[in-house]
Amino acid sequence: MNIKIAKNSGFCFGVKRAIKIALDESKNFDKLVTLGPIIHNPQMVQKLAEKGITSIDDIDSASHEPVIIRSHGVTEQTLTRAKKEDIHVIDATCPYVSKAQQYVKSLSKDGYPVIILGNKDHPEVVALRSYVEGEVYVIAGIDELPDKYFHKVGVISQTTQRLKKLQALISALLAQSKEVKVINTICNATSVRQDSTRKLAAESDVMIVIGGKNSSNTKMLASISQELVPTHHIEEADEFDFKWLDGVDNVGLTAGASTPDWIILDVYNKIASYLDEAKDKVRNVEDIPGYKEEKNVYE
Amino acid sequence: MNIKIAKNSGFCFGVKRAIKIALDESKNFDKLVTLGPIIHNPQMVQKLAEKGITSIDDIDSASHEPVIIRSHGVTEQTLTRAKKEDIHVIDATCPYVSKAQQYVKSLSKDGYPVIILGNKDHPEVVALRSYVEGEVYVIAGIDELPDKYFHKVGVISQTTQRLKKLQALISALLAQSKEVKVINTICNATSVRQDSTRKLAAESDVMIVIGGKNSSNTKMLASISQELVPTHHIEEADEFDFKWLDGVDNVGLTAGASTPDWIILDVYNKIASYLDEAKDKVRNVEDIPGYKEEKNVYE
Repeated sequence: MNIKIAKNSGFCFGVKRAIKIALDESKNFDKLVTLGPIIHNPQMVQKLAEKGITSIDDIDSASHEPVIIRSHGVTEQTLTRAKKEDIHVIDATCPYVSKAQQYVKSLSKDGYPVIILGNKDHPEVVALRSYVEGEVYVIAGIDELPDKYFHKVGVISQTTQRLKKLQALISALLAQSKEVKVINTICNATSVRQDSTRKLAAESDVMIVIGGKNSSNTKMLASISQELVPTHHIEEADEFDFKWLDGVDNVGLTAGASTPDWIILDVYNKIASYLDEAKDKVRNVEDIPGYKEEKNVYE
Repeated sequence: MNIKIAKNSGFCFGVKRAIKIALDESKNFDKLVTLGPIIHNPQMVQKLAEKGITSIDDIDSASHEPVIIRSHGVTEQTLTRAKKEDIHVIDATCPYVSKAQQYVKSLSKDGYPVIILGNKDHPEVVALRSYVEGEVYVIAGIDELPDKYFHKVGVISQTTQRLKKLQALISALLAQSKEVKVINTICNATSVRQDSTRKLAAESDVMIVIGGKNSSNTKMLASISQELVPTHHIEEADEFDFKWLDGVDNVGLTAGASTPDWIILDVYNKIASYLDEAKDKVRNVEDIPGYKEEKNVYE
């Protein structure tokens, strides 16, 4: 029997980097706070708490301990406030998000009304929007496109949006604009996870999808996989049932972008040790057969 | 019986303007030349010849008579050459085309590789291209899109392209670019002629489409109309057959963007006088019932 993990699985580059920064910095400080949870995962939140890293809701709740900015980024106003209060800021904003913030600021400075494609309540979008000085519209799709003609307009996207949605927006906008300047700030972490899950499912007899039952990106992976092969969606290794391996030659694993590495490792090691008791435990997701996280294609 | 013409028919704004400039200037000069025919219509060429306006192929064939630049525009090199030779230039370039030339020059100056959507042999595109100083691609559609990633790219279109083609190009380009700056230089003269022909055909019992048998925009109008109602495509009033009016209540007329006004008037007056011998002849296309040429929607 073979076990393989989808080439792109688990944490994306930005989240992985933010958590590493937080853990590294926890060695320098007794107490650290993050502005909002670094990731919506209870096990990870607990692990961070053990290292003295807790989460606060806003900068006003900080009491002069160093503040970590998570991968989504924060508003320009929050940064100004932190500076004014002389709070030590550890910036773990995803570099792709930081770039998007710079782009949106520059579009705005160049006099472009700005359209942001994204979920207006998402922290990344709230932060992005704060970098616009003039006219700005946050829209979830073409249905919310303002009913006006633009002599010039700048467009930017939340990094997790789908390219198809951006393409549809630009097509609609071209019919009501003279000049459209679009910066494609979409990160391919989501789509490569879906693509590599689809690929692995096609060559597996059973798929184990690891991640939060309420994680929308993990549920999407389970749904893609289920269309091709029997699929089990679990949150932790405890839920794994060895009966799932009956009559199976090829086991496929995959994990959502919010699934911590050690949960993936637990599941892999549980299955691997069942197959070969003497086998050493794997300690890094990178060492699971099949794993090969790609860099963003065009960065 | 009613006769009506499609709201948008015949010469577009740019061609109408160029011919007016040529005829007006012919009063000031005994001899004038145009760089290439102002329009591909034999009757119009003859009418201009009577006013002392002939056509030459290139600036080197000019012998110091004033040179008229037709609506398509000319290359920057041609203008430089004319200046050097001290030739008097009468610029009848369509203002929409002039703007496109300025846009393409400015994209190029700002360091954008430029993609021009258009027919590379068309005089308008040859001229447009001459305003680019750096990297430039002239493509007829997405099949010809260069297979490379663009950190930034500027896109512009031949004015007569279809919006759908530009939209498809931008969608494809977004998948292989970081920044796309597109100037929508498409003029709606072609699409409004098609739309208003479709509308009139739907409420007519017979349609008369006037224009060159080899004019592709006129043939398109005939084809659109034919789908809805019996349609006759004629080049001149002589071809009109009164039998076509048998049992008809509503007659619809339309004409391609290259059809001179007097040919449209001849056809209209022929039908109108048949219906009412005493009727005064109409002398302007604008006075034919139904005609209402729109300005470009967004200019």
